[in-house]
Amino acid sequence: MPKIVDHEKRKQIIAETTWKLISKYGIQHATSRNIAKEAGLSQGALRHYFSKQEGLYVFALNLVKERFISRLERVNEKVLAPIEKAVAYLLEFVPTNEETRLEMEVWFAFVAYGKTQEDFDLDHVGLEKGVKDVIVFLRKEGYVLNHDPTLEEESLYAFINGMALNLYLEPSKINRDQSKKMITHYVQRMIQAN
Amino acid sequence: MPKIVDHEKRKQIIAETTWKLISKYGIQHATSRNIAKEAGLSQGALRHYFSKQEGLYVFALNLVKERFISRLERVNEKVLAPIEKAVAYLLEFVPTNEETRLEMEVWFAFVAYGKTQEDFDLDHVGLEKGVKDVIVFLRKEGYVLNHDPTLEEESLYAFINGMALNLYLEPSKINRDQSKKMITHYVQRMIQAN
Repeated sequence: MPKIVDHEKRKQIIAETTWKLISKYGIQHATSRNIAKEAGLSQGALRHYFSKQEGLYVFALNLVKERFISRLERVNEKVLAPIEKAVAYLLEFVPTNEETRLEMEVWFAFVAYGKTQEDFDLDHVGLEKGVKDVIVFLRKEGYVLNHDPTLEEESLYAFINGMALNLYLEPSKINRDQSKKMITHYVQRMIQAN
Repeated sequence: MPKIVDHEKRKQIIAETTWKLISKYGIQHATSRNIAKEAGLSQGALRHYFSKQEGLYVFALNLVKERFISRLERVNEKVLAPIEKAVAYLLEFVPTNEETRLEMEVWFAFVAYGKTQEDFDLDHVGLEKGVKDVIVFLRKEGYVLNHDPTLEEESLYAFINGMALNLYLEPSKINRDQSKKMITHYVQRMIQAN
């Protein structure tokens, strides 16, 4: 009987192997050859799933996005007071454990990579909209911002992205508790300003 | 008569050529060969100045740092009211023209690169101290923060780094005026909270 191969599972393993190599050695070493070797596949087998490195990178990046979006959805389903919900949601944008730190490392590696590659869509726009949705949500819940909402949105987006960047640069400096405090304080100050 | 070569000047040209290649094609294409070609030098001449690519990268990065620090010093020498001075100083951390955008692109490329290279010191610590010095300065000038100063410092650092990151991702989205408004608003809110 032929061996049954779960192709989706295998593609995920390839993607996760790509993440690990990017995190450990940098994107310049995440070549098809190294990925195949690390994943225990022949280069031919790897090519069966991803004929071009570009396609593999896109898949690896999309898997980061999917997992991130699933986490956001889980927060959305929770029953929480509006401010608590906003904070819990924003906290998902900031890496606070090993799993999300790895995802962040992959994301930032692709940021630098994508900057010089056409057709490599990191979807900043989706990420940006995700952060800014929090302000839309809070306003719907009756909270008032007295500052220009566009600048307030841009500022929140900067703050959250900066927290993610700083945790990428120095993963162990701020823990989840401190991150939560910082975000809570930011959100409270943002909506109390009326 | 032998040609007189200004070695310092030539090293600067090599560094600036490296910046341009990094910005345009990514760090993976900023090889000794491409840099020599683009700078109109033989590979031997390039090797005369930088025997290893690593040394060239360190020099190119240090030149970014030096220019940045000179700009900060110029702001420090200005006679301005404290809040205005804090804002002008912080605005230097955010790219608002072609020159500083190029520097930011090089910096972020090296961030991803340095993440996986030992002994490649990006000096986040210096950058972080630079931002946090603003809070030290404002407190010396008599302004009071009622929030935990450590979290306030971390938050300001996140906000400024995030603005820089967002302008790196989408250079044309926010202009200098808007950046200044966002920083001013942030600083005012930070010190009014007492």
